[in-house]
Amino acid sequence: ERDYALAEVWRWIIAFLIGVTMGFLGFAVDWGIGLLNDVKYFRTQQVIISERGFWKPYFVFIFFSCGYAFIAASLVSFVAPLAAGSGIAEVKTYLNGIHIRGLLTVRTLVAKLAGVVFSIAAGLIAGKEGPFVHGGAIIGGGISAMGSQTATALSRGRFAAKLPRWLGGFFRNDADHRDFTAIGTAAGVATAFAAPIGGLLFTIEEGASFYSTSMFWRGFLSTGIGVFTLHFLVEASEHPNSLSKAHFGRYRDFGLYTDSLAHYGSRMFYYFWDVPIFCMMGAVGGLMGALWVHLNVKITALRHKYVPVRSPVKRMLEVVALVFVTASVWYIVAWSSPCHSLPNRSDLEQFEQSEDMDEEFYAGGGQFRRQESEHFPQLWCANGSYSVYGQVFFTPLSQALRLIMHLGEPLDDDRLNLFQFNYGSIILFFLLTYMLMIATNGVGASTGMFVPALAVGAAGGRLSGQIVRAIVRGMDVRLPNNKPLPVSLTSYAVVGAAAYMGGATRMTLTTTVMVMETTGALQLIVPIIMTVFTAKVVGDWFGMGMDDTHIKMRGAPVLDEPALSPHSKMIADKLTVSELMSMAIVALPPVVRVRQLVETLRCCGHQAFPVTPDVRKAFDNAEPFDLHGIVLRETLLKLVQYRIGFFQPEPSGEIPTSRSHVPATQRERLTLLESLEQRPIKSRREDQDLELRTLTEAELDLLVDVRPFMQRNPFIVHADASLSRAYRLFRTMGLRHLFVCEPQPRVIGVITRKDVAEANAKLALGRKANLGLTTPS
Amino acid sequence: ERDYALAEVWRWIIAFLIGVTMGFLGFAVDWGIGLLNDVKYFRTQQVIISERGFWKPYFVFIFFSCGYAFIAASLVSFVAPLAAGSGIAEVKTYLNGIHIRGLLTVRTLVAKLAGVVFSIAAGLIAGKEGPFVHGGAIIGGGISAMGSQTATALSRGRFAAKLPRWLGGFFRNDADHRDFTAIGTAAGVATAFAAPIGGLLFTIEEGASFYSTSMFWRGFLSTGIGVFTLHFLVEASEHPNSLSKAHFGRYRDFGLYTDSLAHYGSRMFYYFWDVPIFCMMGAVGGLMGALWVHLNVKITALRHKYVPVRSPVKRMLEVVALVFVTASVWYIVAWSSPCHSLPNRSDLEQFEQSEDMDEEFYAGGGQFRRQESEHFPQLWCANGSYSVYGQVFFTPLSQALRLIMHLGEPLDDDRLNLFQFNYGSIILFFLLTYMLMIATNGVGASTGMFVPALAVGAAGGRLSGQIVRAIVRGMDVRLPNNKPLPVSLTSYAVVGAAAYMGGATRMTLTTTVMVMETTGALQLIVPIIMTVFTAKVVGDWFGMGMDDTHIKMRGAPVLDEPALSPHSKMIADKLTVSELMSMAIVALPPVVRVRQLVETLRCCGHQAFPVTPDVRKAFDNAEPFDLHGIVLRETLLKLVQYRIGFFQPEPSGEIPTSRSHVPATQRERLTLLESLEQRPIKSRREDQDLELRTLTEAELDLLVDVRPFMQRNPFIVHADASLSRAYRLFRTMGLRHLFVCEPQPRVIGVITRKDVAEANAKLALGRKANLGLTTPS
Repeated sequence: ERDYALAEVWRWIIAFLIGVTMGFLGFAVDWGIGLLNDVKYFRTQQVIISERGFWKPYFVFIFFSCGYAFIAASLVSFVAPLAAGSGIAEVKTYLNGIHIRGLLTVRTLVAKLAGVVFSIAAGLIAGKEGPFVHGGAIIGGGISAMGSQTATALSRGRFAAKLPRWLGGFFRNDADHRDFTAIGTAAGVATAFAAPIGGLLFTIEEGASFYSTSMFWRGFLSTGIGVFTLHFLVEASEHPNSLSKAHFGRYRDFGLYTDSLAHYGSRMFYYFWDVPIFCMMGAVGGLMGALWVHLNVKITALRHKYVPVRSPVKRMLEVVALVFVTASVWYIVAWSSPCHSLPNRSDLEQFEQSEDMDEEFYAGGGQFRRQESEHFPQLWCANGSYSVYGQVFFTPLSQALRLIMHLGEPLDDDRLNLFQFNYGSIILFFLLTYMLMIATNGVGASTGMFVPALAVGAAGGRLSGQIVRAIVRGMDVRLPNNKPLPVSLTSYAVVGAAAYMGGATRMTLTTTVMVMETTGALQLIVPIIMTVFTAKVVGDWFGMGMDDTHIKMRGAPVLDEPALSPHSKMIADKLTVSELMSMAIVALPPVVRVRQLVETLRCCGHQAFPVTPDVRKAFDNAEPFDLHGIVLRETLLKLVQYRIGFFQPEPSGEIPTSRSHVPATQRERLTLLESLEQRPIKSRREDQDLELRTLTEAELDLLVDVRPFMQRNPFIVHADASLSRAYRLFRTMGLRHLFVCEPQPRVIGVITRKDVAEANAKLALGRKANLGLTTPS
Repeated sequence: ERDYALAEVWRWIIAFLIGVTMGFLGFAVDWGIGLLNDVKYFRTQQVIISERGFWKPYFVFIFFSCGYAFIAASLVSFVAPLAAGSGIAEVKTYLNGIHIRGLLTVRTLVAKLAGVVFSIAAGLIAGKEGPFVHGGAIIGGGISAMGSQTATALSRGRFAAKLPRWLGGFFRNDADHRDFTAIGTAAGVATAFAAPIGGLLFTIEEGASFYSTSMFWRGFLSTGIGVFTLHFLVEASEHPNSLSKAHFGRYRDFGLYTDSLAHYGSRMFYYFWDVPIFCMMGAVGGLMGALWVHLNVKITALRHKYVPVRSPVKRMLEVVALVFVTASVWYIVAWSSPCHSLPNRSDLEQFEQSEDMDEEFYAGGGQFRRQESEHFPQLWCANGSYSVYGQVFFTPLSQALRLIMHLGEPLDDDRLNLFQFNYGSIILFFLLTYMLMIATNGVGASTGMFVPALAVGAAGGRLSGQIVRAIVRGMDVRLPNNKPLPVSLTSYAVVGAAAYMGGATRMTLTTTVMVMETTGALQLIVPIIMTVFTAKVVGDWFGMGMDDTHIKMRGAPVLDEPALSPHSKMIADKLTVSELMSMAIVALPPVVRVRQLVETLRCCGHQAFPVTPDVRKAFDNAEPFDLHGIVLRETLLKLVQYRIGFFQPEPSGEIPTSRSHVPATQRERLTLLESLEQRPIKSRREDQDLELRTLTEAELDLLVDVRPFMQRNPFIVHADASLSRAYRLFRTMGLRHLFVCEPQPRVIGVITRKDVAEANAKLALGRKANLGLTTPS
């Protein structure tokens, strides 16, 4: 019992540690991006000021961009190929119960997070949420196991880099590891955007196919602590001397001003007739999302052909080339920009005001020092005017997103209405970002897609808003005080961002909450819900979202919610388990000769083997056999590799039925199992084969009893049960195998809800009585 | 297949309808409460102004309060006893798979929602979220089945008040009904507080023990539509002529000003050193919550003894007496209040400003016309001064909550700091509300507890904030501009509210999001998370939250998350299913003589019977028998009551084994099952007995084949499996029975995740081929 209580305490501690760690990583990545961006844009700007002209600043800009790209791509291509892309598809696959080797190693973590710093700073159309999901998963899994395979591998197997049980190394079984991995993803998303609720909901909606309230609570603690850690570090770095006087929680990740300046309450509003327009934007978002997925699938096919994963140099060059194109396009657009005179001084001050006099720290590293006005860059323009396109093109992507959503929020309505983005710059930004986003997804760098999706959507939304405003002006609708009816461009931009993100990812609740938390749009929750729903319905009409499409292309057996498609639900209802089950079973007897075991392992790739006394029956397709349990391939490999449990057969040559050769007490057995758990095994089939060959003839003649190592009572299902039933069991219980029993199984009793519920109280007593009578088996 | 697609479309339509319906109900209830409160306070105030003195206004106040209470209590005691209390415990029980008869009827709905209007207007320390949860559940269940038992009962069984299938009456099976009931609860909470995300999370965290993404999405649509409907109705009633110019989404349910006036961004902030103080408040909240539960359990025991449910008059009188006490205390406090001079005119305007010139509509009906200043009531005070206690005591509870949290938000910091609530009034409000809340919970009226919990917490938080501010002032900490360091009392009040609500309900995510959505405290999410966690941990140390305690007291076999208590988890791991299962099974043969069936039904109260050819074996405890399926008691009763499927035995007297007497095609069978589903049955055992006696001797000699009516393939579990396994199956699959098979079951195959996943594509083909070969069975 103390063990259980201790494990429970450790679960909370680990959730806490995951949060703190992710908070630190979130800060470090933001800081890194900010630093690199600062260098890139500052140097280029200096050259623009001193030299004017097109080429010199262009070279500087391209030099930094492609240099960063080279590092980002090398980290992926040469260090950890699994760090490519967002990683959300892979983590979802893992949480669905399917292992991908190397997915959750420290090596991948380093490549992923360092990679995302460089790929974002390089100017790729990418965000950081995907890498943070993946990074969070690694941290969650790693902290829960208190061990690292990479560190173990570094020591070449001489030393298992794992903490002992009493220091928290409790949770090494599949289910726990998966729970903490899920908590890690929640903390990852939360710290990537300082959005604690959105992060948790992401994991619930997207990640975990099984669900438990306690995991949910731990995830919530973890995201809360993560964001607090992040805020604390941000404030500490910003106000090192007056930390205790700093207001916390004032920044939204996609806000431009602190909350107290932005006055979201007066900026974000909507009229009821906006809602159908928003829904139309949602429909467009859904269409564009579906088109994006469609085109990206085409490009991925080309990429498989011409830039395969197994040629890292090509893959690396592709990234550099893509960054070259992106940076060039962005630069050329900024260069070819018309100029426009700056707002007057007092307006400009409002546009650029901030609560702190010192440098602002933007999460996401969107900010850099400018030598002129902050949001109105001069670039090649004459004094007193600013570069219209440069405003959103000569700036990092996340900063452009912020400007499009929020620029001018602290101004009065009347003054703000004098200013709006140039149609040309918004349309260009919208189209170019969308097109390059299609090409970027799937490239060999660490990239996420939320930020680009939000940026495309915000531009589209802002554009719609400007059109709606022009129409309202045209109709000359006036308020009682005779001012024209205001139309909130901020609302349009925010809703547009949600529309396109919904269309691309097909997440509903997560999109809504994340957009709300990162932009501060508390007032817009209801219209965002409706917009995102429209986007989802329209998008789903044409196919799946990006992550699910990639999962499907990869062929991983991820099980979606069965009810999601009426067609597949019908199929699942009509088919029975027996029509699908495999009868090509390779079974093992409880006590097996090592030679037989080795042969089985070598010739058969199954991941698990049923244990039964009637091995012959098991091979015979028609006949039912008694199922004692199942033993995993991995366990068997370890037994063979470390020669555990081998024993001499009786002199008579008969296979013994007694259990004299297995540990007698529960404690010894546990110790044995635990030591087994700690040992590494070779992962590749060839290595396994080599290992199996090292056995001597004498060893091959020994016996081994697999019973102590088998999982008893695997889940079973009727042969006549519908596929839906099996599907649901697989999904909610996180299974990999399900044994099929006869259509009319032989049962011996029934257990009701009441038996189970009252058990806690009633049987605690019974148990005590029992303890006197029987020893725990 | 068309059926599946149609069902899917209907599912969305029903979710939409649930939202719209709850939006209308939410508006109607708010409107009703507002109207009744207006009459009560306005009349009393008139008498105070014209008569002064204690007694005359007192009688008016008591007259209205007790009159409302009489109606509220009568609705519960004489119309629908199940409408008492919050109903959350009952709905949670239902969602956990346990039926409570009469819980989800239209009669209960009417009593509940009309009841809550009167009990809140009567001045009971109560809120409306519980009744809305219950009401939403009824609406959800009712709309999904497109039928009503109450209406059916009104027609005395001559007419089943149910729409046919093609008009949406699809979802009458348990699982669907439960899903829509859960969606209804989400929409209920959402519309009660105009909090779409909080409503959905409530259902996820608290209600449903099983979870599916599609339900989640439908719930989200439903809450979004519900809140939009509510907002629309509110705005339409407020600005009937300028609806198209009205800004939507500006009101928070527990905000005092519209969002654009309140400037939450500059009012709600925290310093990092506030966090430990908040956590201490959380600990106090947890302690107070635990004490509240403890005392309420005591009171509930007394209530069972002296005011039992079966004596409605006593129960009604108790409510009236409680309202008499509450109203008297509140009145006396307001009367005995000291007076204080009003803030100066310009400050007062800021204190009372609102965006609309017309009457404001507060969701929750907190508002009423005052003849003097809105937030500073004059009452018995001289002109130019206001009643200090009257400010929070002579006003509805939810309005007091708003004042404590938000009063003065639109003022500058400097001016606001001149004003703070009188310590006496806050302390009195804190203590009296807490004490009366203990007594109120469980009384025979329709009441919720979120609002009182928030009010107690807000008062406690405000008090803590005022103390902290005094200390900070004492330390003379100053900002660079030499102003004293501001301490946000709003933040303290909001966090305090979350702390106590967390301590009372033990919900984490829901509390956080609901407080955030209803108060606008986007900036405080992180500290609220930490505070609520502390409250939960401290509270859980002493026992369960209020709802769970009541569920346990009632003895319903609700299954909580097993991992929540390490102790019960350990027990569940140590026990096996076979140690708990019941072997006292009453089984039926596939073809049974009516006489035997009737006897079984009369002498045995089981809710389900296994069907097996070896009935004898089933009675014999030790021997395993073949399980064909289970048939529900309800189904059997219907068969007998409507003489369905009865047939003559063969002349030889033998029981036929052929299936000639059952419908040959799938379609006929479905029609039969559906007609069976539509028929009402008697619910009470005595009525059932009477019904069974109506069978003639000739009928008793007939046979009936139960196979077409049985559920095939009930869930099975190993005898050796741990109790945890069974527990998890019960919970996630929503089961009521689980059959136990032999320890080493006979299996015939294995099915893997891959088989299931690829099935969709591969087997759609296989199915087509099959269709040529076999007819669908």
